[in-house]
Amino acid sequence: MNFNTTELDAMDDRYRAKFINSLSGFKSANLIGTTDAKGNHNLSIISSVFHIGANPPLVGMICRPHTVTRDTLENIQASGVYTINQVCVDVWKQAHQTSARYPADVSEFEESGLTPEWVDGIAAPYVAESRVKFALEVRETQTLAINGTVLMIGEIVQVIVDEEAISEDGYIDIEALETVAISGLDSYHVTNRLARLRYAKPGKNVEEI
Amino acid sequence: MNFNTTELDAMDDRYRAKFINSLSGFKSANLIGTTDAKGNHNLSIISSVFHIGANPPLVGMICRPHTVTRDTLENIQASGVYTINQVCVDVWKQAHQTSARYPADVSEFEESGLTPEWVDGIAAPYVAESRVKFALEVRETQTLAINGTVLMIGEIVQVIVDEEAISEDGYIDIEALETVAISGLDSYHVTNRLARLRYAKPGKNVEEI
Repeated sequence: MNFNTTELDAMDDRYRAKFINSLSGFKSANLIGTTDAKGNHNLSIISSVFHIGANPPLVGMICRPHTVTRDTLENIQASGVYTINQVCVDVWKQAHQTSARYPADVSEFEESGLTPEWVDGIAAPYVAESRVKFALEVRETQTLAINGTVLMIGEIVQVIVDEEAISEDGYIDIEALETVAISGLDSYHVTNRLARLRYAKPGKNVEEI
Repeated sequence: MNFNTTELDAMDDRYRAKFINSLSGFKSANLIGTTDAKGNHNLSIISSVFHIGANPPLVGMICRPHTVTRDTLENIQASGVYTINQVCVDVWKQAHQTSARYPADVSEFEESGLTPEWVDGIAAPYVAESRVKFALEVRETQTLAINGTVLMIGEIVQVIVDEEAISEDGYIDIEALETVAISGLDSYHVTNRLARLRYAKPGKNVEEI
């Protein structure tokens, strides 16, 4: 089935949101932990975290300033620090609950039943239940003129991960850690590995690692 | 296990690339189809495609100007048009093969055994084997000062998808279409749905759809 711009424009807003959100493919499921100046904790699930570079280690995410991620965005802009915590299968429903619209002084940790975890030197809470998590300092915040969303780029300053999941070559087996994936706005998935593939070369068949 | 910035800095470059690429969570697997002024087709797998907004329908991706995605980037900058094609399980190894370093005048379609598909009005090839694919016009190209990678934002001008995968509410069941996910640099995964969850509300338990 083939949709052109006229047909995309004509879609009902909620229908279009679900449709367009499905197109980019599977998305990461991460909880963003922050704190405001009064010490209120905030936690929100975001599916737009993406890799930007390994050296320096940079991660980006897209935030919507007028939605439930508003508190997250304001806290990061004020404090300069945040944590990203992969959502694992044990807590996927609690993670989704953080997307409800709570007032700024309500902690999504308490409301969702997730546990804040503090590590010396990091001024934002981790999620204790997460098995791959990292802290970032903001390096760039940019409002995209095209639709008013905010691109936030942070540099990783600390990583916490279960040691047994780290392969000899540096790859972290996030499937073994039961990290979930998201599709569309609201669908959660666990994964089954097909294989890891070796670096591809011209004229050579693809090989499994 | 806990890594600080000194320990991250001290990692071997290849090790760090695999380690840091694992942190953001599961990633989308997409093939980017382009054409240069001489009519050479180019196809490259990219794991950095992400949703930016539904209205207007915008999708972003991160390209590295000095790697195998260089031809893709140059073609898009010259023509203004590209296709994004979800990688499904039937062709995941062929898709990986497009990441080999081929000269600009070699078609990754031919080398990987994937089939270019042309649709009237779109000046870039689709991948016939892909079951969810869309064409974009470039809206913004921006070199990120922080590491020299390029953020490319495109507006969706056409969508082609198997009709039976579109739910009543607009969600596209990309798991039913056997779209794969990527973790790290080189690990491919199929998925199993846990459930879709209703829009979360304060004080209400999370409900499956």
